[in-house]
This record gives sequence, C-alpha cells and structure tokens, in this order.
Amino acid sequence: MLPSTSAAIFSLLLTTTTLLSLSSSSSLSDDDDSLTYIWPLPANSTSGADTLTVDPDLSISNSGNSPIISAAFLRYKCIIFSHATTVPPGFRSLRTPVFDISVVQIVVRSSDEELQFGVDESYVLRISGRDNHSIVGFAAIEANTVYGALRALETFSQLCTFHYESKTVKVMKAPWYIQDEPRFAYRGLLIDTSRHYLPTDVIKHIIDSMSYAKLNVLHWHIVDEESFPLETPSYPNLWKGSYSRWERYTVEDAYEIVKGVGYPDLWPSSSCKEPLDVSKNFTFDVVSGILTDMGKIFPFELFHLGGDEVNTEKQPNYGVRDGLSKNRKTGYMSALRFGFDGDGSDGVDTLDSPRWLLIDHNMTHNDAYQYFVLRAQEIAISNNRTPVNWEETFRSFPSKLNPRTVVHNWLVSGICPKAVAKGFRCIFSNQGVWYLDHLDVPWQPVYEADPLEGITNVTQQKMILGGEVCMWGETADTSDIQQTIWPRAAAAAERLWSTREATTVENINKTALPRLHYFRCLLNMRGVQAAPLTNFYARRPPTGPGSCYEQ
Amino acid sequence: MLPSTSAAIFSLLLTTTTLLSLSSSSSLSDDDDSLTYIWPLPANSTSGADTLTVDPDLSISNSGNSPIISAAFLRYKCIIFSHATTVPPGFRSLRTPVFDISVVQIVVRSSDEELQFGVDESYVLRISGRDNHSIVGFAAIEANTVYGALRALETFSQLCTFHYESKTVKVMKAPWYIQDEPRFAYRGLLIDTSRHYLPTDVIKHIIDSMSYAKLNVLHWHIVDEESFPLETPSYPNLWKGSYSRWERYTVEDAYEIVKGVGYPDLWPSSSCKEPLDVSKNFTFDVVSGILTDMGKIFPFELFHLGGDEVNTEKQPNYGVRDGLSKNRKTGYMSALRFGFDGDGSDGVDTLDSPRWLLIDHNMTHNDAYQYFVLRAQEIAISNNRTPVNWEETFRSFPSKLNPRTVVHNWLVSGICPKAVAKGFRCIFSNQGVWYLDHLDVPWQPVYEADPLEGITNVTQQKMILGGEVCMWGETADTSDIQQTIWPRAAAAAERLWSTREATTVENINKTALPRLHYFRCLLNMRGVQAAPLTNFYARRPPTGPGSCYEQ
Repeated sequence: MLPSTSAAIFSLLLTTTTLLSLSSSSSLSDDDDSLTYIWPLPANSTSGADTLTVDPDLSISNSGNSPIISAAFLRYKCIIFSHATTVPPGFRSLRTPVFDISVVQIVVRSSDEELQFGVDESYVLRISGRDNHSIVGFAAIEANTVYGALRALETFSQLCTFHYESKTVKVMKAPWYIQDEPRFAYRGLLIDTSRHYLPTDVIKHIIDSMSYAKLNVLHWHIVDEESFPLETPSYPNLWKGSYSRWERYTVEDAYEIVKGVGYPDLWPSSSCKEPLDVSKNFTFDVVSGILTDMGKIFPFELFHLGGDEVNTEKQPNYGVRDGLSKNRKTGYMSALRFGFDGDGSDGVDTLDSPRWLLIDHNMTHNDAYQYFVLRAQEIAISNNRTPVNWEETFRSFPSKLNPRTVVHNWLVSGICPKAVAKGFRCIFSNQGVWYLDHLDVPWQPVYEADPLEGITNVTQQKMILGGEVCMWGETADTSDIQQTIWPRAAAAAERLWSTREATTVENINKTALPRLHYFRCLLNMRGVQAAPLTNFYARRPPTGPGSCYEQ
Repeated sequence: MLPSTSAAIFSLLLTTTTLLSLSSSSSLSDDDDSLTYIWPLPANSTSGADTLTVDPDLSISNSGNSPIISAAFLRYKCIIFSHATTVPPGFRSLRTPVFDISVVQIVVRSSDEELQFGVDESYVLRISGRDNHSIVGFAAIEANTVYGALRALETFSQLCTFHYESKTVKVMKAPWYIQDEPRFAYRGLLIDTSRHYLPTDVIKHIIDSMSYAKLNVLHWHIVDEESFPLETPSYPNLWKGSYSRWERYTVEDAYEIVKGVGYPDLWPSSSCKEPLDVSKNFTFDVVSGILTDMGKIFPFELFHLGGDEVNTEKQPNYGVRDGLSKNRKTGYMSALRFGFDGDGSDGVDTLDSPRWLLIDHNMTHNDAYQYFVLRAQEIAISNNRTPVNWEETFRSFPSKLNPRTVVHNWLVSGICPKAVAKGFRCIFSNQGVWYLDHLDVPWQPVYEADPLEGITNVTQQKMILGGEVCMWGETADTSDIQQTIWPRAAAAAERLWSTREATTVENINKTALPRLHYFRCLLNMRGVQAAPLTNFYARRPPTGPGSCYEQ
C-alpha cells in the first residue's frame, strides 16, 4: 500500500527505478560466472565448474589448537549458516542429508600469535572438486600465522552461499585454489569519537565489518577539541571534557576494544592530539602521563601524535585541571593549535589569534608548534613507540622530525612521494578521495586512488605502509556512521589488499561494480548498514523499491 | 582535524551547534530530577532521593522458573552491565565491593504463557530505599503473566544507569514504586519487506528495539506487488517473485522470526494482500493455500487481508504459476488492484485499465473487488482468524463486511469514529501522523496524535484496539530503516502505552523532549541507529558535532 498523498510520486519512482534496475543489472541476478564474487579480490585464484554442499555441522581440524582460530571459526560458522533450520510443524524438511564439505583443515605454521604491524597475513585456501573416487570433498587452509588463517576464513565464508531451493549452503565453481596476501600492511579506517561519542558496541560492530573487507587498522581518534571521552587515570579530570557524563570510555572499555573480544584480527592504534601549553613543563608531564596510560591500553608500535591544523580563534586560558570540557565550551587551550589552509601554506600569521602567551616565552607560533611536536615525539620514542604525525609536521620542519616518523598524508596530493624521497615512511589518506565525510565522492574515485601514485622507485614504494580511509565525525553518529563508511570503504579496502594488476581494468563498472554490489548486500545480510551504491551522494537512502543487488 | 575544503563550513556549523545545544539543553546534562527518565512513562510511579548500587552478579528469584523469564533476564543483564570489567594491567579496580541490590524477585501469578492479542501486560515494580536496619536493598516484580514481567524488566533496565566515577551501575531516586499497564492492547509497527528485502537479522534487531519502547505488534507486510520474498510450500513458484534468488525468506526463517528466538515478548502478525483473479476458483485455492501455510507459521488471531488502494495501470495477464515476479516485472495480475484517491472516492472509472477480464464475468471493478475481499474474509474466518482490512473496504461496502472485521485506518481522518459507531473494531494508523515514511513529520505531531480522537462514548472507545506506526519500505532498506523508525516510533509508543493524563502536558518540549532525547541515546547505547531528534526531516544526520542528548 502506498501513502495516498505521495502515492503518485512513489509509484512513478518505483516503476522507473524497477525498470531501470532490471534492465541495467539483471546480469547480477543471473550471476556472471566470469566474475569472482570475493571482496577484496585475492592475489591469485583458479576455479572450476563443480558445486559442493557444506555440512551445517561443519567442524575444523585446527592443527595448533589456537583459541583465536577456534573463536573465529565459530563466528564464521554463524555467518555461513545464518538461515533458520527449525521446520515449522506441518512442513517437511528439504535439507540435504549428505554433504560434500564437513571439515575445514587449518594448518598454521607459526605458533607466534603476537599481533603487530606487518604481521604475515598470507594464506592458501583449497576447496576440492567433485572426485569420482571419493564422495568427500574438503576445504583446506594453510597460513604462516593465525592472522593469515583468519583472512582465509573470511574468504571461505564469502564462497559459501545459501541456496533456497535445496535450503543448503553451497560452494559454487569448485575446485578452488586461492593464494592470497595483502598488497599493503597498513589498511586503516579512522573513526572519530570526539565529534560524536560512539558506544562501545557500535565500535565493535564497526570492527566486525572491517574484518569482512580485510581492513586491519582501526585508527581510533578518541579525543579532540570537541570532547575528551576517555578516562586517563593519571589525570582524572580530563574526561570531564566529555559531552555528558554518559558519553565516556573507561580504561576497561578501551581495553576491551583493544583486546578485541572476539575480534583478534584487528589492532586499534590510538590518537592523542590535544594542543597543550608548551609554556609549562606540566604540559609534558600530562603528555607523558597520557602516553603511559595509553601505553598500558594500546600495546602497539605506531602512536599517532597528530600535529595537524589548529583552530586559533579562541581565547587562550590554559588549565588541564579545569578539564578539557572548558576547551570545548570556551576555547581554553586552543592558543597553540595551528591552522594551515588548503594550499598547505602556513596560515598562522593570517589568523587573528592572541599572542601574549607566546610573547611571554619569546616564541613564535611556529616555534611553539615545532617544540611541542618534537617533545611529544621524544616522549613517544622513549616509550618505544613509532611516532605518526600528520603531514603538516613534515611540511613545516622535515629536517627536525625524528627519522622514525611515519608521515600521515591527508591534505595535499604528492606528500607521500616527497616524504619517502626524504626517507620517511608514509600513510596515504588523501582527503580528496579517502575522506569518507566528503559525501560527494562516489565509489569510483575511492576505488581508483592509489597510495603509490607518483612513486616509481621500488625502494621508495616499500616505504609506503598503506592507506587509511577517514570517517571524521562532524556529521557521523551512531545513527549514520555505518552507511557513511560503507560501501565506499570497501572500495579502498580492495585497493589496499588486492594487487594493482588484478584490479586495474578498463571498465570498473563492468567488473568491480557488480562485485561491489554483491559485497554491499553481503554487508547488509550480516547486519551492516551499507548504503546503496547508486546514490549520487554517500549514505543517501534508496530512491525507490528494488533489490540491494541493483541499488 | 577537519577536511580542509569543507573545514570552514564544518567548523562554523559545529561552533553554532555546540553553543546552541549547550545553552538549550544543559538541563539534560545536569539531569532534571523532576523528570522520570522512563520511556514510555508508567501509569503510576513514586520515587525518593536514595541511590542504590546494583550487583554485577545480579540474579533473579524466578518463582515460576519460567524459561521465558530466565532468557529475558539474561538479555537485560547484558544490557544493564554493558561496560567492560576487565581492568588493564597496571590499573587498579575502582569497583564497589558491596552492592545494595543483588537479587530481582519476580512473582508471576499465572502459569499460562500463551501469547495472544490482549494478554495481560500489567506489572508492579518495587525498589527499596536505603534502610538503616538492613544494608540489603531489593528489586521486586509482580505480574499476572510472564509478559507483564518482561515489561517490568525493561522498566528496571531503564532505571539502571552506569556511573563512571565509581564504575558501578546505580539506581537513582530510590525507593521506587511503579504500577504500570498499557493504555492499548495493540501497539504496532509495520515493516515492509516487499519494497526492500530485510535480512532476518535486521528484522530481529527491529524486534529487539520495539521491546525497548514496549511496542508489542510487528505487522510484517511480507509481500506486495514489488516482490514476493516468502516461501509458500503449497505454491512453490510464488517466491520466484522475489527481487533476486538471495532475497527470500524460507518458512524456517519466518517461523524463527515468529517464535522470536529470544524475543517472546513480541508477536508478529502477517500480511497477505496480493490482488488475484476472481474469475478463477483457482485463485481462492491459492488464497486458501497461502492462509493455510501462513497459519502454520503465524499462529495468531489477527490476520491482515489488505484490500487497500490498487494500481490498475498495468496490462492484465494473470497466471500464478508464472510467479509473481511477472507482476513486478510486467504488471501481470494487476488488473484487479483497485485505486482510491486521497479523498476516498472510487477512482477506478477514471483509471485507464482494460476491462475485458471483468466484462467476461460481467462484473464491475467494484463487484470484483468486493467479491475478492469477502471471499478472503470467509476463508480467514474458516481458518479461525479475525480479518483485518484496510479502511477502503469499510468505506466501500461496510454493510457487507464480516462483523468480526477489524478496520485498519490509514488514509483519512475520522475513520475509526465511524467504524466503531457501526460496531467494528478499529486500529489507528493515520498516515498524516503515523506513517514513518512521511519524513517531513517531526516527533511532536506523532506524539500528540491520539487513537481515541473524536470518540467520546466509552463503549466505543473500548473498540479501538490501539494503533500502529507504518514503516513503508519504498525508501527504507537495511541501510536506513532503523533511523527512519526511531526516534519517532517511540513518540507513538508512549502515546499507545502511557495514560492520556500522564502525557497530556502544556509544553511537551519541556517534559517529553528531554525524556525522548534520553531514550534516543538509550537506543544508541543499545546499538539501535536512532536518528537525532533535532532534525527538521526524519533520519537526517546531525548537522555538527555534539552530544546525542542534545541533538
């Protein structure tokens, strides 16, 4: 039934939409066998023409008895066999009695399960074909680490599809041989809990969805000017800067996210980029205290120290003990944030910002800015962390940065080529293509962007750690963050995982688009609110009725 | 860090928004003790000034040992104690060693756990104050049925708030005495899986969220012209009318939704309203077959037979065996759908629809329409169902409708008063206020609408079963359905549950709005994508950074 007042409009829309979609992409409904419906695309794969059934009582032979593998297998079993099995009274069961695949053999070569940057994620997945000599098929996974095995399980789950006629999960196009490994070690998503608080369950749901696309770095931008939701026991007043007393993270909450209860295949890094008063040593006690506290929660090598554009509009009047809420509400502590405008030139002198604080200490804004960043780097390194800094630090005083610094590009094109030429490692997040809060960027430019653009020297190419799509939170809260992230983040995920060769095609609308449509629906089926692909703007609702495989 | 190109816009927005919200609703951040933060508002409640702590090892004394109660308690325990408890190495635990409330005593008077329309949902919830004579507080629930106890557990969970300083769950304003019962027995939400397929996990998530607002009827509009996703074993070709072979529900899926694994506090009803060819008895074999199949899946009294506006634009060329997909794709079977325009007058004669089919059988469109509806009613009643029909059937041939018919209002105002005056029961869904797909209707008119409007006679008032908000699916799919439903559905939920007296206030922006803000954030905390309340249009993202309690 259509709402009467808008019936005409709606029925018009839906007729047009339906006809359009039916004509445009019936190919997908008919399932184009020339395409491999795995996202992101594996490095190498071959397939056949057999169809195998998968046993609902599927089990694993887990050579290392790794609890990480066991937990992951149970997660994927729930995903693969998501359809109900209880037959209502009065109906007969249609389920197949015998199945081809009843066991997934998993062999992991290394017993080292430490999760750190650059861990080996490669794997080989084999699925047998129909063998006349035996009725039993098999699925076998080989990996160097448990994390490679987790990637393999994700791929296996994507090969399993539920067939409604037989009510059986099947693997089409067997036998399969898939050899796979990531193109880049750093495949990140930034979330921003300062502009909008995200409940821990929402963050866990986001981490879940990341693993479906084989993204492996959660860059948790926890605090910023707008709010400071994280507990820092060394300075218990800081989280009074949260939006409300209900929008906070305890250290236990943060620790749980990191431990990734049930999500060991992801390792959050943290962000800690409050502008502080260099005129007080107390400032660096705070930085040190925060880093020490964070160090207990986030046991990871890379540590993001920020150092990006700054808002100097507010009255300086610094005091940590007052809580950073003062910052959000009155502009405290903002005298030492530095602004750079779009073209990358230092915009500080053009900003109307009070100077007394700096004059007191006979420092220019740039002096203070550089002093702060370098002191913070020293502290991070003394904490055995590798400092990551936004590109402004590199553009402002490249020769002063610690050589271990990882430069994080965001603002201007061509930063990574410059950074690696000077011997720094670099992460690509060019905001023109990989800022998910830019709603007017459709999936194609996200997909076609490349972290290696402009870098031909192989040694320098190796210094590109990878890339990160950034979900800045100005207009993204619990209600809309997932459909702003997805499906566009999946386009970047394939760019970061799959080989350039396998994904460089003449017409991505013929090859990548049907596969991305399929992956968007896979996300929907797994409860992730991925938005329609056909929207002109990101996260817009569908314009009319239709299939998720066509919208 | 702000995206450079849109930095100016964003920072401007965010400054304004933040200031606005801070000034406008700091009251909420300070927690107005004069308000009871329970949604929907209980019929009667008194509270005190004590604060009690709740034991993380909370248990129940479940007099009837009902598995329904036990399962529900475990769900609510997870909700109440959602914060992580594992203290990271190097931090000390702040948790309170002793707690005031360690047991919830639950007494259910009736052992009858059958869930049917009109089941007793009343309950009494008592929470002790601080007693000098004993250090042990208590929470006690009394209800006539397990379903009343489930409502009480939801209310109890809303009284439990996590306090970050002590990292303890507390009940404020104890002692509490709450006596509660619903104003209407029928408190519904319609979802539409014909315009967009919704995965079963998404439907379960919606059912979860309904229970938080004490909504108790899921009106599952499973099939319509656009697609037929449901398996009907008697006519296995029907679900070939699904959008794709992956967007379907098996009878097992539907049965699981109905059994409501883990959600016994909701009872879906079903919808089955395809226009069929009255010229063939076979048609009614199909109707009968479908009703019989559905009967095995949906063991509920009310059965929605539709009978609403019809699209007669398409070429008639009927054949069930071809599958209803033909209907979506070519317009088959649409000759016998009838259109009524907004003012309720019969618009058939003005429609350009071929007549041969009807002329063959010497029937007018109206004859055929009436014949179909009445035959369907007979079949439903012979299946011991109570037919529910959209208002057009009542407006067209009221004297012919079975007296047991429940009239479902949607189109014009004042239908329910007319229906009850003629002795029919009625459900209120006036599309001007309770159609959630009308995105330009803010929460206030949703809240102020009333099913009893225009009905003064007490006997006639009793014939209003309640109301239903309708989430028609033209532009609602997995990516956006929850933020289109919420928070507005919550406004209708309080109207349907709470007494008119308790919720009739001079300024709902001072009383209802802060409570609804609180409930919206509660939904967010529970992982439901409820949209900001301050949007001019429904489901829009927040316009800038801020607290969910203020947006």
